[in-house]
Amino acid sequence: MNQQELESYLISVRRHLHQYPELSNQEFETTKSIEKWLKELAIPIRNTDLNTGVFADIKGGKQGPIVAIRADIDALPIEEKTGLPYASKIKGVMHACGHDFHTAALIGAAYLLKENLSQLNGSVRLIFQPAEELGGGAKHVIEDGQLDGVKAIIGLHNKPELPVGTIGIKEGPLMAAVDRFQIVLYGKGSHAALPQNGNDPIVAAGQLITALQTIVSRNVSPLQNAVVSVTKIIGGSTWNVIPGEVSLEGTVRTFNPIIREEIKTKFYTIVNAIAAAFSQEVEINWFPGPPALVNHKSITEIVETAARQQSLEVIQPEPSTAGEDFSYYLLNIPGTFAFFGTNGNEDWHHPEFTVDESALLQAAYFLYESARELLNQHSIS
Amino acid sequence: MNQQELESYLISVRRHLHQYPELSNQEFETTKSIEKWLKELAIPIRNTDLNTGVFADIKGGKQGPIVAIRADIDALPIEEKTGLPYASKIKGVMHACGHDFHTAALIGAAYLLKENLSQLNGSVRLIFQPAEELGGGAKHVIEDGQLDGVKAIIGLHNKPELPVGTIGIKEGPLMAAVDRFQIVLYGKGSHAALPQNGNDPIVAAGQLITALQTIVSRNVSPLQNAVVSVTKIIGGSTWNVIPGEVSLEGTVRTFNPIIREEIKTKFYTIVNAIAAAFSQEVEINWFPGPPALVNHKSITEIVETAARQQSLEVIQPEPSTAGEDFSYYLLNIPGTFAFFGTNGNEDWHHPEFTVDESALLQAAYFLYESARELLNQHSIS
Amino acid sequence: MNQQELESYLISVRRHLHQYPELSNQEFETTKSIEKWLKELAIPIRNTDLNTGVFADIKGGKQGPIVAIRADIDALPIEEKTGLPYASKIKGVMHACGHDFHTAALIGAAYLLKENLSQLNGSVRLIFQPAEELGGGAKHVIEDGQLDGVKAIIGLHNKPELPVGTIGIKEGPLMAAVDRFQIVLYGKGSHAALPQNGNDPIVAAGQLITALQTIVSRNVSPLQNAVVSVTKIIGGSTWNVIPGEVSLEGTVRTFNPIIREEIKTKFYTIVNAIAAAFSQEVEINWFPGPPALVNHKSITEIVETAARQQSLEVIQPEPSTAGEDFSYYLLNIPGTFAFFGTNGNEDWHHPEFTVDESALLQAAYFLYESARELLNQHSIS
Amino acid sequence: MNQQELESYLISVRRHLHQYPELSNQEFETTKSIEKWLKELAIPIRNTDLNTGVFADIKGGKQGPIVAIRADIDALPIEEKTGLPYASKIKGVMHACGHDFHTAALIGAAYLLKENLSQLNGSVRLIFQPAEELGGGAKHVIEDGQLDGVKAIIGLHNKPELPVGTIGIKEGPLMAAVDRFQIVLYGKGSHAALPQNGNDPIVAAGQLITALQTIVSRNVSPLQNAVVSVTKIIGGSTWNVIPGEVSLEGTVRTFNPIIREEIKTKFYTIVNAIAAAFSQEVEINWFPGPPALVNHKSITEIVETAARQQSLEVIQPEPSTAGEDFSYYLLNIPGTFAFFGTNGNEDWHHPEFTVDESALLQAAYFLYESARELLNQHSIS
Repeated sequence: MNQQELESYLISVRRHLHQYPELSNQEFETTKSIEKWLKELAIPIRNTDLNTGVFADIKGGKQGPIVAIRADIDALPIEEKTGLPYASKIKGVMHACGHDFHTAALIGAAYLLKENLSQLNGSVRLIFQPAEELGGGAKHVIEDGQLDGVKAIIGLHNKPELPVGTIGIKEGPLMAAVDRFQIVLYGKGSHAALPQNGNDPIVAAGQLITALQTIVSRNVSPLQNAVVSVTKIIGGSTWNVIPGEVSLEGTVRTFNPIIREEIKTKFYTIVNAIAAAFSQEVEINWFPGPPALVNHKSITEIVETAARQQSLEVIQPEPSTAGEDFSYYLLNIPGTFAFFGTNGNEDWHHPEFTVDESALLQAAYFLYESARELLNQHSIS
Repeated sequence: MNQQELESYLISVRRHLHQYPELSNQEFETTKSIEKWLKELAIPIRNTDLNTGVFADIKGGKQGPIVAIRADIDALPIEEKTGLPYASKIKGVMHACGHDFHTAALIGAAYLLKENLSQLNGSVRLIFQPAEELGGGAKHVIEDGQLDGVKAIIGLHNKPELPVGTIGIKEGPLMAAVDRFQIVLYGKGSHAALPQNGNDPIVAAGQLITALQTIVSRNVSPLQNAVVSVTKIIGGSTWNVIPGEVSLEGTVRTFNPIIREEIKTKFYTIVNAIAAAFSQEVEINWFPGPPALVNHKSITEIVETAARQQSLEVIQPEPSTAGEDFSYYLLNIPGTFAFFGTNGNEDWHHPEFTVDESALLQAAYFLYESARELLNQHSIS
Repeated sequence: MNQQELESYLISVRRHLHQYPELSNQEFETTKSIEKWLKELAIPIRNTDLNTGVFADIKGGKQGPIVAIRADIDALPIEEKTGLPYASKIKGVMHACGHDFHTAALIGAAYLLKENLSQLNGSVRLIFQPAEELGGGAKHVIEDGQLDGVKAIIGLHNKPELPVGTIGIKEGPLMAAVDRFQIVLYGKGSHAALPQNGNDPIVAAGQLITALQTIVSRNVSPLQNAVVSVTKIIGGSTWNVIPGEVSLEGTVRTFNPIIREEIKTKFYTIVNAIAAAFSQEVEINWFPGPPALVNHKSITEIVETAARQQSLEVIQPEPSTAGEDFSYYLLNIPGTFAFFGTNGNEDWHHPEFTVDESALLQAAYFLYESARELLNQHSIS
Repeated sequence: MNQQELESYLISVRRHLHQYPELSNQEFETTKSIEKWLKELAIPIRNTDLNTGVFADIKGGKQGPIVAIRADIDALPIEEKTGLPYASKIKGVMHACGHDFHTAALIGAAYLLKENLSQLNGSVRLIFQPAEELGGGAKHVIEDGQLDGVKAIIGLHNKPELPVGTIGIKEGPLMAAVDRFQIVLYGKGSHAALPQNGNDPIVAAGQLITALQTIVSRNVSPLQNAVVSVTKIIGGSTWNVIPGEVSLEGTVRTFNPIIREEIKTKFYTIVNAIAAAFSQEVEINWFPGPPALVNHKSITEIVETAARQQSLEVIQPEPSTAGEDFSYYLLNIPGTFAFFGTNGNEDWHHPEFTVDESALLQAAYFLYESARELLNQHSIS
């Protein structure tokens, strides 16, 4: 295929995926399609115990290490409202985070790698990962052994607010560790006019919310980045009865694992102590999401070189407080994750979210060139 | 009728009312029944513009002032669960506050007054008041002119925790002024990880709840009695979005009109200022209920004498933080309100609430004797 | 002495005391003067192990119980600014609470009792108590055995805001239990720009102050009277260093021993828990003062009768949130304490505090008549 | 002078300054010494209206722009405790921030520039600035016209925690904007037991401290760096009186002028609103210090090149939350400020603070090479 043909092909791949989005861990048809496309490229599929996701190796012409390229393949429980001709045909499910774009770009990279086998100083593992939106897909891929033998890994995410032709590359923290919490304060209800007969959980919740503000204001270095938000509070059913309990929910975002752990410890200390101060029993549930995504210096520099060679405009992006389970790979092996300019209508997870397809061929080339460059370099060891 | 016949009659009256309870301002059948019973006693009904309620005068044998006896006649939207043979036949409506008892007692007092006309140094006005539970019935009775010419007023409420034969009589504050409030803090929602893009109403609510505690702890004399309770708080829908608003509800109880007004003023000051501190728009709704019920000294002493003559055990009750719209009458004329021992299963407004009917004849005599004694005394002027 | 002579004598006694005030537990000259005056009346002094204070018994003509009258005799470390000709001659010490008035009134009562021995159905013990201002004098008097055999006790305090001729008599709580507290929060200091290196005690103190408000607003019945005040806070020395500690002081006032104990328990719970929430070590010092002064019903009624016989205007005073160690006597035996109208310039403990001496003879008669009446009554058992 | 002679000379210069430190705006002898040393190098002094400080131009062999090198010359009101043989001879004054080192390094750079005039493609302005410690010296230098015609400026600060031979160079924010605040809450005092008679400023202060935490926790992006610290609180004098006022002090540190302004606005909003909530009059004093020091990209890169040529180890320092009035120059012209490794005993402003003099010749060379390189480059325009 020439450039134009390849672009048309990748757009058709992406639109097919876009019309048939599947939720996390249910990417059965998506998996079949990817397998079919890889077979058409004569790329052998790796064995896996996972129900969804596709893994494959492209062996280069020369001996060398293995590097991996990862795309995520799942969609979201959002009803699409773009009005596009190739909008989702699955009610209530939408590729509203552009994983269809990532998948198609990786198919394109696979094509280009296959076309240029002789130039490859090693092998490239393709990782079509399921269940990124749940925050746990990457962990299962690693447990499944798909990272075995891999020396470095790269990936990208479309970025609506960057124009096409621009790429955000940055060493160090790029995306946040995401933790979720639930608190229930169990006080003791009473008549509103007889507070002394109960243990008012609303007053306790008020003090707790204010106390939690001090984690960021006092316990986190002003040179570190972190946020603790209480986002939901529910308590009481009427105007003349003090309720027996109040429930709260919220989230913590951090970019540094030590800070993450310190905040969790401080959070438990504060919640338990404030509950004790106001004679509340308390239940705390803490749901850890993926760790912060921290790009490795050497890999990031190599990928930046590849991007510049491709005439992409490289900018240093501000970190995002969103999460991304690509971070699990980076706990195991070096790698980098880039933000790829796609000039979208709306931000991620919005029913009118779009990507500009003119970025698709660029993305395929970027992944291909980056992998090739990585294999050329001796910095991977 | 002899004593036993009268008791049987009053119990039948009470049971009839109990089986056919009617909600506030809908006491149509109750009104008809009372009118019928009064007509049987040859007591003439007064004109009224109200749709429900009955008013009547019993003229005594001698010249003298008019004193009033009031009973409330409405029921509650509660499904009765007493299992009594004469339980409510109206689904979801129940005399769960014992107004049937009050009404029957007043019928009994009317009978006794009529029997002893020659001893009455003046007249007695019977006030069968609608809509006490809404807190506004008494006001309409006054506007309707039913208090015109009345020199003093008495009333009673059954009291489940007092044994039969006991009566609570107390000069000064007996029941609380009841105010209700609603607050909505309108901040600005944002992603949980980007609080700086919004104005977090949950943090504002937390500070507000703590600030409101200072009304009682700092602005009310420790020798005064008051309570401010936030009883309900609702805000947010999920763990990763800071909501745009939080709503709160609650109540204020006071026993002194100056304190009541001071608390309301302070409440508005605090709510508005805390909202301003956290860049919230705020909506405050304040629903004033009846004022505190404050018994007059001279009338209370006369009624206490009547109670003792009747061999009731007189105790000084602790004030109740519940409300009672009898208080409106006491803003206009002197009077007193008593707690009558009825040894109930459960407290007011409970689906298993009961009264011990052996207190009914006592209550009728107490109202009759009190009215007679009031007419005998010169302290009413 | 006739009335006029007695009045002159008592005024001279009072002025002598006023010119030579002595601090608590240092009432050596005062003790000598009282002993001298009693000897002049041929009243035998009781033995005591105390260094100051005078105790004596006046045996009546008839057999009967012993009742006690107590006056306190100590002065305050206040520089008098009344400009009176008989102002304090002791620099920095003043009878600014009128204990000189109390002492002189008791000398007067002693004279009257002695004059009317034949009418006394029992004995009267005179208690000239030291160290009331420290809150502990009464305890030592009791330990010294001076209450042994006494069936009832009475006392009074001058009341500047009451006019001469008026007396405040009230059954039940009259003066508050007074507790004092000190808190030190030991956090960890740090540069103001590096709060994460310390544990900010100022932020902890801020939360603590707000949390303490909930004791009165939530844990004390709105029908009870109590106050918790933080009155002093000291922390930090400059603008760019977070200090290592913050100290707070304050007081708790209650009228009910159960509430007093509940507040103390809740106080410790809150202080310890809030300290824990903000990683502070904490030191709490609690200094219990005298309990609430609660007048006994029967004795109060007898004394009220005596006051009315004497044509004093009896009013029911509002309780005072000040403390008075007379309360210790009432933990042991029945008794009552009255507020005696003295129409003062300024309130207690003010450098311009005065008493109107025309109340002095009244006070002597009131104590005498009350004691006599108590001995006449059979209610003391 | 050869290298060794130059080093000895600079050490003697530095030690002279160290022995005769002068406070801000009182650097009279220091000024005379610098003028003498420059005259010895035949460098003409520029006119100035300032009382202290020295300004001079070194004209290079070729036409070109002017670049400036700045050293600060003032000392601190600290009693030196180093025990060094050349310790301060002025009681209570000490070069505890190493400005003597900066000054001597600039004398050294002047010598080197003068020695290599022919290589200079333009001129170098020497700025010996007074009163850096007050945060305002740089402003007066600019107003005095000493920056006129200057295209770029460089400066350095010794850094005790960096080893000799290491230099911290960083584009963007390096040192914080420093603001100081004072708040006085004027409530209304009252007896501790009668809070309703006053407006308790301690309770208001408690709420205020907690409310101020939300500036950093809610109003500043988690990706921005800022700190708001209350460092001092004073209120009340005894345990039984609620005071009439409470005063607070503290500081705000920021690295971004927009955030700085937003925080100040939010601060005023919160303080005024919380004061209003608790009926306090409030006085706010805000003392703005120097803005954040933000290094310019192009100049920083040139200086980094010069440092590497000199074989200094270049590291990227973490920003410091301390302030530096060099930032005022950077509001006017491009430039950069470096942290120079001096391996000190203690941090700045400590009585045992030292610098390792073996870094002095390095610093002189670094300033000289940087200025030369800047003149060589075309990036200054």
